[in-house]
Amino acid sequence: MQGIIAGRKPVMEALRAGTQIEKVVFLQGVQGNIIEDIRRTAEEKGVQVVQASKQQFRELAVDATTQGVVAVVAVQKQYLDLDGLIAIGTGRTEKGFVLILDEIEDPQNLGALVRTAECTGVHGVVIPRHRAASVTPTVVKASAGATEHMAMAEVTNIVNAIDELKEKGFWVVGLAMDADRLFTEVDYSTPVALVVGNEGKGIRRLVREHCDHLVKIPMYGTMDSLNASVAGALVMYEAARQRHIPLRT
Amino acid sequence: MQGIIAGRKPVMEALRAGTQIEKVVFLQGVQGNIIEDIRRTAEEKGVQVVQASKQQFRELAVDATTQGVVAVVAVQKQYLDLDGLIAIGTGRTEKGFVLILDEIEDPQNLGALVRTAECTGVHGVVIPRHRAASVTPTVVKASAGATEHMAMAEVTNIVNAIDELKEKGFWVVGLAMDADRLFTEVDYSTPVALVVGNEGKGIRRLVREHCDHLVKIPMYGTMDSLNASVAGALVMYEAARQRHIPLRT
Repeated sequence: MQGIIAGRKPVMEALRAGTQIEKVVFLQGVQGNIIEDIRRTAEEKGVQVVQASKQQFRELAVDATTQGVVAVVAVQKQYLDLDGLIAIGTGRTEKGFVLILDEIEDPQNLGALVRTAECTGVHGVVIPRHRAASVTPTVVKASAGATEHMAMAEVTNIVNAIDELKEKGFWVVGLAMDADRLFTEVDYSTPVALVVGNEGKGIRRLVREHCDHLVKIPMYGTMDSLNASVAGALVMYEAARQRHIPLRT
Repeated sequence: MQGIIAGRKPVMEALRAGTQIEKVVFLQGVQGNIIEDIRRTAEEKGVQVVQASKQQFRELAVDATTQGVVAVVAVQKQYLDLDGLIAIGTGRTEKGFVLILDEIEDPQNLGALVRTAECTGVHGVVIPRHRAASVTPTVVKASAGATEHMAMAEVTNIVNAIDELKEKGFWVVGLAMDADRLFTEVDYSTPVALVVGNEGKGIRRLVREHCDHLVKIPMYGTMDSLNASVAGALVMYEAARQRHIPLRT
């Protein structure tokens, strides 16, 4: 599948991550420090850089928020299997830290969740093979390129994946708005897998039943839930805080 | 302007909030408890309910993630001025709590930020009149209807708004990835205005200079920033925690 990575940060991240990029395309006339950085990095990496007219550029770009830069890439996310993903934590001699997405449908949410996972030291993200968003160029862009760095596994059955993680010593914490406990009241210092559910329906009944803990986020006002990527981020940061992950400060 | 609110939660929230809805449209054959709740609520509010074929429904819906329900509305967000927005906190005898968005461009981010603001007890959201997303049907949907509840002010000049807030005793805290302090190291128990900047460029230089504090979020890994709506949410929750806002638990 050929894809487009659009926008300055996503293109820069993809270049840095060594993504297979066919060419970087600049809109004629764009300039600025970031543009020059991208141009220099592309040249260092031996990636072709071309200029395009407004018309040509529009034909390439997925939408309007491209900031004058796109990269044409062979997007094909290399998924690991669950064991490969678990091995990352073992390799770093860190306790496992996994994010499980139970049928996240919106590419914007998938992208934002992977981006936050990358920013909180998560070792890998598990997504279902069916009935959910997978890594498309839109997701790469929404993640600002984080999908290029983050290990991901596509599994046929989330419940089986949870059971396998539990066998390997993981505690599984699901987000559910009707949970008894606050997300700050659970211990995340063990090997831990966080489960974030679908935007509309939350996590599925069977998935809930296989979680060790269900946690909720305190709310004010009239709404009964947060955006899935916001809810996931709050719990990932709480887990990172408790695990004393050496975040950059 | 006529607009479409799509999706079960957004339609339900709009109904609850008393939004001027012309009609609720169900896709033929959709069912479930939420659908029945929406139908009942619409009838209670005297809102017309109609069924549409797949074809008719597709013509109405903005995109595919409508979950079989849309509301046709006269969307026209009633913006307050800054004084009106400040008065909300005063009316509730709470210390002011305001969110300022400095040129957020992405409707998804604007929606998610307003939704989180509503979930953390923010009194009102300030957005610039130009060069930024404003409340469109896409934003209403992305906010899951929170824009219907949240007071918002559109101002011509964010720097002036900041100065006015400071004169009224607000402390102004801006998010910047190169800040010296962590977002958890600042006191939010005063009247406070949080400033979240543009997705690509962050907060503008002049806006930065008018902030009392700049704070950053600790990061791990290869990325240098979080999604704007995620970053904003982390700081809003920290502020709510410090302010002992009685979140529902």
